[in-house]
Amino acid sequence: MYTLGMFCVRACSGLVAIRTASHVRFLHSFPGITVAQIDEEVAKLLELKARIGGDDGKHQFVLKTAKGTRDYNPKQMAIREKVFNTIISCFKRHGAETIDTPVFELKETLTGKYGEDSKLIYDLKDQGGELLSLRYDLTVPFARYLAMNKITNIKRYHIAKVYRRDNPAMTRGRYREFYQCDFDIAGQYDAMIPDAECLKIVHEIFSELELGDFCIKVNDRRILDGMFAVCGVPDDKFRTICSTVDKLDKMAWEDVKKEMVNEKGLSEEVADQIGEYVSMKGGMDLAERLLQDQKMCKSKQACAGLSDIRLLFSYLQLFQVTDKVVFDLSLARGLDYYTGIIYEGVLTQAGVTVVSNEAQKGAPSEESVSVGSVAGGGRYDGLVSMFDPKGRKVPCVGVSIGIERIFSIMEQKAEASAEKVRTTEVQVMVASAQKNLLEERLKLITDLWNAGIKAEVMYKKNPKLLSQLQHCEESGIPLVAILGEQELKDGVVKLRIVATREEFDISRADLIGEIKKRTSEA
Amino acid sequence: MYTLGMFCVRACSGLVAIRTASHVRFLHSFPGITVAQIDEEVAKLLELKARIGGDDGKHQFVLKTAKGTRDYNPKQMAIREKVFNTIISCFKRHGAETIDTPVFELKETLTGKYGEDSKLIYDLKDQGGELLSLRYDLTVPFARYLAMNKITNIKRYHIAKVYRRDNPAMTRGRYREFYQCDFDIAGQYDAMIPDAECLKIVHEIFSELELGDFCIKVNDRRILDGMFAVCGVPDDKFRTICSTVDKLDKMAWEDVKKEMVNEKGLSEEVADQIGEYVSMKGGMDLAERLLQDQKMCKSKQACAGLSDIRLLFSYLQLFQVTDKVVFDLSLARGLDYYTGIIYEGVLTQAGVTVVSNEAQKGAPSEESVSVGSVAGGGRYDGLVSMFDPKGRKVPCVGVSIGIERIFSIMEQKAEASAEKVRTTEVQVMVASAQKNLLEERLKLITDLWNAGIKAEVMYKKNPKLLSQLQHCEESGIPLVAILGEQELKDGVVKLRIVATREEFDISRADLIGEIKKRTSEA
Repeated sequence: MYTLGMFCVRACSGLVAIRTASHVRFLHSFPGITVAQIDEEVAKLLELKARIGGDDGKHQFVLKTAKGTRDYNPKQMAIREKVFNTIISCFKRHGAETIDTPVFELKETLTGKYGEDSKLIYDLKDQGGELLSLRYDLTVPFARYLAMNKITNIKRYHIAKVYRRDNPAMTRGRYREFYQCDFDIAGQYDAMIPDAECLKIVHEIFSELELGDFCIKVNDRRILDGMFAVCGVPDDKFRTICSTVDKLDKMAWEDVKKEMVNEKGLSEEVADQIGEYVSMKGGMDLAERLLQDQKMCKSKQACAGLSDIRLLFSYLQLFQVTDKVVFDLSLARGLDYYTGIIYEGVLTQAGVTVVSNEAQKGAPSEESVSVGSVAGGGRYDGLVSMFDPKGRKVPCVGVSIGIERIFSIMEQKAEASAEKVRTTEVQVMVASAQKNLLEERLKLITDLWNAGIKAEVMYKKNPKLLSQLQHCEESGIPLVAILGEQELKDGVVKLRIVATREEFDISRADLIGEIKKRTSEA
Repeated sequence: MYTLGMFCVRACSGLVAIRTASHVRFLHSFPGITVAQIDEEVAKLLELKARIGGDDGKHQFVLKTAKGTRDYNPKQMAIREKVFNTIISCFKRHGAETIDTPVFELKETLTGKYGEDSKLIYDLKDQGGELLSLRYDLTVPFARYLAMNKITNIKRYHIAKVYRRDNPAMTRGRYREFYQCDFDIAGQYDAMIPDAECLKIVHEIFSELELGDFCIKVNDRRILDGMFAVCGVPDDKFRTICSTVDKLDKMAWEDVKKEMVNEKGLSEEVADQIGEYVSMKGGMDLAERLLQDQKMCKSKQACAGLSDIRLLFSYLQLFQVTDKVVFDLSLARGLDYYTGIIYEGVLTQAGVTVVSNEAQKGAPSEESVSVGSVAGGGRYDGLVSMFDPKGRKVPCVGVSIGIERIFSIMEQKAEASAEKVRTTEVQVMVASAQKNLLEERLKLITDLWNAGIKAEVMYKKNPKLLSQLQHCEESGIPLVAILGEQELKDGVVKLRIVATREEFDISRADLIGEIKKRTSEA
């Protein structure tokens, strides 16, 4: 016991050491302690030991980030910034404002919004005060924000990190901390106009990021529910059968059917009827055909959904994006809060990321090279009213772009390409060819900074000219302003063009103009 | 019991309701249940009830953000973006790259880095797996990043949220979740050159943000320690006396002295000697005078610090920023990890925020209107080696700009000013004067979006022209492209300049060019 205590005193951080020391004192000053108490103390200390890790008395600190998270180095940040800029430009082009909400919410705010996925929510430790959880998405905080501020219409984007205690597959761009780029339109509007704009946005972003071929699947919760009803699924099984249908992008129909029959208790016949419907894909024509479908027609809900899909496609035609949009009855989406149209953007040809056997054989197909969904969304007309004290409804539709998989693809593209990614925007390096010119370099760079020029100087009294030039080559700095005794005497600076190694003298008065001219061209 | 169960079924969210219902079933189907089991169930349900809050059978959901946190609405975001842009431009002008790290770290990574402030760290709940904490600052994750990636020199900025379970004073811009904008230079360089650049950066940012008058206090941990030594403070009391000195910006010397004598056990004489030193403020001249000080000279440490302050001021002169920098021996700073120079940027004249009695009487003084520190930093040469398995040192110096107080000031400025803050960048509204032109509006806006124009359309089939024009006035959209039957026949669009109410027809072919021309001028 004492040895254990000492081990901890040596190995632990200040706080723990004090706690342990007090345990030890406790045992010494009260010899009448019970065995059970000692056992408890031993268990606590052993647990502590296990956490500290190792028997050798030396604390091996684990140098890593938390499971499922990553750092971004400067090169990765440069790529990330490029992706963000493309996405933000698109959101702004469509007239969105932006908001921000805290990274954690009252636990209660998130409760009952995510169905089975609620188990993936990160809770904060109860340290006194409110019970808090990290946000799971940006949609529920958005709905909370609308209700709290009594906002009935807004078009906003929100780009921020969300948190899910999922089993990460980081090589495929799946993390426990990841960015979502959300665009949502809240307000009472005419049917399908904002919904169509969300799809237009996905189309624009995927196209501009040059992620290869893609496809946007659309469906409607009302069509799914209506279909379940006319196929004979009991009302109380709609959501759970919906979850099973949602697995069709990862599982074969045969296995999905098995789950429906064996686990969810549907009859073979009912399952087969569902199977027929969920295999259907098409465009406006499919919506029209299903509106004539004898069985489907029996469901008012399904009809409403199908009419809206038809209307949606008519707007998508005007937006010139029908080439990529597929009405797909197998699309279900996991989240509880959707009430109408749902959609998912899928990259179908991102060869650099996932190369399956088929693809290697030169026969890429949608299934074989899919990297999965990188955008998703839908209509959620009932979420805001869950927060509003009077249950007032604010109809909403939105889309969320998942950035991490896009980053993975862009990163691999950047690595594969010969082009060098610059991580700074420095325009000029202030260098010296001789010793004892630090003061002169600092004077010159002050002038440049004050004129808004991006400039660097080596933090050495007497750096070698070669190492100053090398730094420019490595980090892509296009210009060097070189000072020497002669230049100082003549009131000039030697300007060197790094790419061509060309050098010429320029007067101090003209330097700033020259740098601006040469770097604005680039 | 049953009533309670029913209460929960009515009042709770889906998940809880199911759990409660199963409790109820359980009680009904096993009448042989023990009293202890029932008591346990009762306790669980009562706890549940307490969490739900209230006896009235109606669940009062609290619609708020977590304590000490806030949302940013679009107007606030517009201001925030402006502030960020100024800060990022400055960091980039000085050649910094950027990185990002996760919002939570292994708890162990943060342990033992913050001294007494460690109690303010947010821990995540132990849900199995690693023990995690929310980051407390960006400096410790930066040091972890350097050690993990064996980086020995880098100049990077990092703008991100940090978390402290402090008692927030939100009206004064103090939060539990807040942004830090960090700029740090890591690497073995010649003394005081990077340190001086950090101060230059604070000077540039404060000036560009037009936050009123400011002052940058500098000191050095080695001067403080040397001063304590020559005044006769015992070695083991350096840190705690340093914490007491740190209170001088909020407490009068008399009270600080009392704490030193009564709580920390210094003699009156020692305290008075410290009091003499910490009242000293000046520039390079003060450093030179203290280098001649008989007593101070006895400490090698103090001398090294004073020489560096002198050198620092010589570089600050070259950077043209000495007007705002004060060598202030009372500056101590709380954090443990500083090893050399320390500094703090203080706004001294942000009248809009804090108006004390003195200031109202027309006699503003540095003390009376100070809104406190909005930037701080220093040299921490030992932090990276705490993470490096071999204890390798990477000298670092950096500065952290606290954004929330700056936001508060900028927000109040914006409110006080007549100028309207735009929250979108929309250039043109696509409107119609007659009914049944939705399709034509959508066609036109598609052309505009595809040409990169920021454009909006009302999500109504037949919006009134007046409401379309009103929306433009309200949100500052400068142009309206109006479609009517006649315009469609003539192949033109009526372009309206919102500010002047001027209107003219323009051919569809020339529209995009005209919009670009008119909005690039703005």
